[in-house]
Amino acid sequence: MTDQDDDITRHNSKMAKKKAARDRIMSTKTEEKGLIIVHTGKGKGKSSAAFGMVFRCIAHGLPSAVVQFIKGGLSTGERDLIMATFSDICAFHTMGEGFTWETQDKERDIAAATAAWEKAKELIRDSNNRLVLLDEINIAMRYGYIDTSEVIDFLKAEKPAMTHVVLTGRNASDELIEIADLVTEMTLIKHPFRSGIKAQIGVEF
Amino acid sequence: MTDQDDDITRHNSKMAKKKAARDRIMSTKTEEKGLIIVHTGKGKGKSSAAFGMVFRCIAHGLPSAVVQFIKGGLSTGERDLIMATFSDICAFHTMGEGFTWETQDKERDIAAATAAWEKAKELIRDSNNRLVLLDEINIAMRYGYIDTSEVIDFLKAEKPAMTHVVLTGRNASDELIEIADLVTEMTLIKHPFRSGIKAQIGVEF
Repeated sequence: MTDQDDDITRHNSKMAKKKAARDRIMSTKTEEKGLIIVHTGKGKGKSSAAFGMVFRCIAHGLPSAVVQFIKGGLSTGERDLIMATFSDICAFHTMGEGFTWETQDKERDIAAATAAWEKAKELIRDSNNRLVLLDEINIAMRYGYIDTSEVIDFLKAEKPAMTHVVLTGRNASDELIEIADLVTEMTLIKHPFRSGIKAQIGVEF
Repeated sequence: MTDQDDDITRHNSKMAKKKAARDRIMSTKTEEKGLIIVHTGKGKGKSSAAFGMVFRCIAHGLPSAVVQFIKGGLSTGERDLIMATFSDICAFHTMGEGFTWETQDKERDIAAATAAWEKAKELIRDSNNRLVLLDEINIAMRYGYIDTSEVIDFLKAEKPAMTHVVLTGRNASDELIEIADLVTEMTLIKHPFRSGIKAQIGVEF
């Protein structure tokens, strides 16, 4: 047996052990339920990764819905393509008027966020929807445009058992993280804006 | 003027200042170039967020390409939907044989990763592609199935100026992060596996 053969045998046996351990762990995971999922942090990808879940539902033929609380999370490209291609299986509502520093009108922002939250409740209550994405809702809660406790109480009391609800945006509150099942923080390690690169098609929009 | 009016005036003026500051910053960002983008970390969403960029390119009618180095990053649902609906504008190549602990065959893994890398080079060299996603390539480099320095040297020497290349997977090497323009780390804060919940349609696949 050569050294290389020996190395390969060792690797394969290590991987077989890993697989056995993984299979053992997976066999204990039997419960299925609708999750409360949070994507937060200052990094990119919070909305896109959530959108990936919507896309997976579409791929599996499962109804889903998106409510955009503030424009700018999901790109208009993604929104337009969903609306053009998959509107029969994915409802898409844009209620926000743009980021709050674009509008400079607190009353209008509150009215838009409140309308978005009313629509969100209606979509979550409809148990045909397997997944409802509340895009950038964390920002609306953070600014106090909608009440965090009301959102949390509603999810605890009225979310159908099998429905996934995904809440995205920076600064997710501790109370929301507390009731969530799956929380991912996107952390910015390096950003080209710092080197004078502008927002670009395909990356930012 | 009531207290509430006063509060609204203060808020609107604060937001106007924020907008001015933001507009000032954005006006200095003028350079456009193809970026090297890395999604790493133990959290979810690395592949899905990258996939969101592919989806944005599709939405804008820009050709793009995906090479899956290892199965399991992007879901089969996402892959099938892309291949069924958008194959004219997005090339999709799955070269991996599944996670390495599933195959238990180092030689086959190395052959698959090498073939994937050859395909990746071909797709990156083709400057029609605006974005090329190398899904889970970081794992292939981490295991030594492909050589990290070769990947880095190739990107530095041969990536067309306007092409974005996205590299995903845990354990991105320091050398890769060093040459990257945009790096996001997905951090796991809370995961339902820990409470006995199994992988579920729409969330994991």
